[in-house]
Amino acid sequence: MLENITKTTLLVDKDIAIRNIIKMKDKAENAGAVFRPHFKTHQSGLIGEWYRNLGIEKITVSSVAMAQYFALHGWRDITLAFPVNLREISSINEIIKSTKINLLIESIEVADKLEASLSQSVDVFIKIDCGAHRAGISIDNPNEILSLANHISKKKHLHLSGFLTHAGQTYLTTSPVEIADIASTTAHKLQKLKVVLNDPELVLSWGDTPSCSMIEGLKDFDEWRPGNFVFYDVMQFHIGSCGLDDVAVAMACPVVAMHQKRNQLVIYGGAIHFSKEHIVADNGFRLFGYVVPLTDNGWGQPISGAWLSSISQEHGVVQLPPHTTELFHPGDLIGILPVHSCLTISAMQEMISLSGEFIPCMK
Amino acid sequence: MLENITKTTLLVDKDIAIRNIIKMKDKAENAGAVFRPHFKTHQSGLIGEWYRNLGIEKITVSSVAMAQYFALHGWRDITLAFPVNLREISSINEIIKSTKINLLIESIEVADKLEASLSQSVDVFIKIDCGAHRAGISIDNPNEILSLANHISKKKHLHLSGFLTHAGQTYLTTSPVEIADIASTTAHKLQKLKVVLNDPELVLSWGDTPSCSMIEGLKDFDEWRPGNFVFYDVMQFHIGSCGLDDVAVAMACPVVAMHQKRNQLVIYGGAIHFSKEHIVADNGFRLFGYVVPLTDNGWGQPISGAWLSSISQEHGVVQLPPHTTELFHPGDLIGILPVHSCLTISAMQEMISLSGEFIPCMK
Repeated sequence: MLENITKTTLLVDKDIAIRNIIKMKDKAENAGAVFRPHFKTHQSGLIGEWYRNLGIEKITVSSVAMAQYFALHGWRDITLAFPVNLREISSINEIIKSTKINLLIESIEVADKLEASLSQSVDVFIKIDCGAHRAGISIDNPNEILSLANHISKKKHLHLSGFLTHAGQTYLTTSPVEIADIASTTAHKLQKLKVVLNDPELVLSWGDTPSCSMIEGLKDFDEWRPGNFVFYDVMQFHIGSCGLDDVAVAMACPVVAMHQKRNQLVIYGGAIHFSKEHIVADNGFRLFGYVVPLTDNGWGQPISGAWLSSISQEHGVVQLPPHTTELFHPGDLIGILPVHSCLTISAMQEMISLSGEFIPCMK
Repeated sequence: MLENITKTTLLVDKDIAIRNIIKMKDKAENAGAVFRPHFKTHQSGLIGEWYRNLGIEKITVSSVAMAQYFALHGWRDITLAFPVNLREISSINEIIKSTKINLLIESIEVADKLEASLSQSVDVFIKIDCGAHRAGISIDNPNEILSLANHISKKKHLHLSGFLTHAGQTYLTTSPVEIADIASTTAHKLQKLKVVLNDPELVLSWGDTPSCSMIEGLKDFDEWRPGNFVFYDVMQFHIGSCGLDDVAVAMACPVVAMHQKRNQLVIYGGAIHFSKEHIVADNGFRLFGYVVPLTDNGWGQPISGAWLSSISQEHGVVQLPPHTTELFHPGDLIGILPVHSCLTISAMQEMISLSGEFIPCMK
């Protein structure tokens, strides 16, 4: 298969991806939670079938366009995990004719505007900010949450399904104890709200790959929505969510030049392929990916002392251990494990499997 | 036009873009240089016509796919300013049947492999590293450059056109004096090589937006290849290449939530729209873009004290001056001047002009 690759190409190891899906599905179900994986990571109708074949029926997406795409691919229960964009109300009204779309609300103003513009009723979640400080009502502001819940209960077109939160701050720690603490503190506070509202049916929806991967015995939530776990990446390895053997994607990059004095390769693989997401290592070096040898069956272990050290629009510079540039030639292919698989796939919008199957994404 | 925008949309002010093209073209021609703009910034056949209407006939691209695209749009003299990817030799042989493609070489190994695989002769430039330390032979290694030039002269399929360099290090300084010094030192060393090779016809090809914008009286090069200048961006403003009035693109982003206590807006506009390129400000804040009000005729001056302060896949968080969140409502549109227009366009792959004209890119 490698001989057919002429340019920067994202490879996916289907066996690893399916193993990751099964493992996370089992973990969620053993915790008594509904597994509603986030599809923004792969954005592919074909990869969606890998989940469907395992019995998964409920999914999460992050845009109206993604909801439309997966509705066209036969998914009928989709949580749109992004604060409603009121300017897309026509498209939302169109999708909800065929598909259950669960929306996120975090203000009375949006509840009122939705009530006035929705053509039929929808399930909604109140978006809770449990510490990431991006979207949602602060979990430490229970009065505002309860007030919005009561407001929603009076709306004909809105049915409150529960509380949804994304602990984005788990990406900033590598401590499983700290992550478990974020989860249990959040769950405790949300359960109190259920008691006040006297509604045991309210769903507590949770989901980020670090916590769902790292916490054992996470039983406090009714629903899990991780996404990245299907492929993982170097960032998740650094956080501690996965081993490098669990990373299911690698970018095949042509070598275009070698620089012996600097121990560097120039590759065809840059910001338009990987995004500019990176990790700043302890020594101050910027890390855009690990380097792996490609084989006919996939890829091997990362080369020790080698990393993708800088990228511009199409160029990548790979730092190698001393005296190893001579192992490479222009026209060779090397593999790069990406720092952030979601953004890499969003940039590429297509992949091929190790058996050479073409896997298109939504764009 | 604004009322038709439902989601994150890149706006281009054609008047500003054309003004930027005319200004740079005049500056290059007044310096006695051929103007060969880089088209990787806009990646659009339609925007290419704006240049063609001004009499521009020679262009620069950064990938074989981009060369194919612009060849299909009638461009017949294209420099592929990226070290040759030998795995794409079939595509290169196909394009050169109809189009003059100038290739970049930086090693004897690639020269030999090209000689063996090209179906007809092409013009080549030796890629010179004048200090960016990405691709190219170091300008301080004249013997290696001369040796490659002599090697190329013996090849039937390769004709040496000149030396090509990209002073990427100009992005790291804001000093016009320092930038002018990089240019003149580089030119001086390249001119020496021409003397040694006794070939006054060799073209010295230069080009990066900071130097072409900031240096007055840059007369040392035969060809200019800047690209970003057509739209400019916040990074170029910070370097000093342009005024904010010269920035020709702005992202229209729906407001989806307000957070009064944090003085923040959440917008639909994230890494998949802007890329993750950012500037680290003196105070340590990360800057992903400036905030501008949108009007029916374009956009206004940046709002003082407001900036795009963080982005994830689809979310953006805008930091506002205190007590101003109440001026915004969910469903409003705000504009963001991007940090790096090239990567933003590469992520979006489409724009609309202020008159509502749809402008597709190559993908």
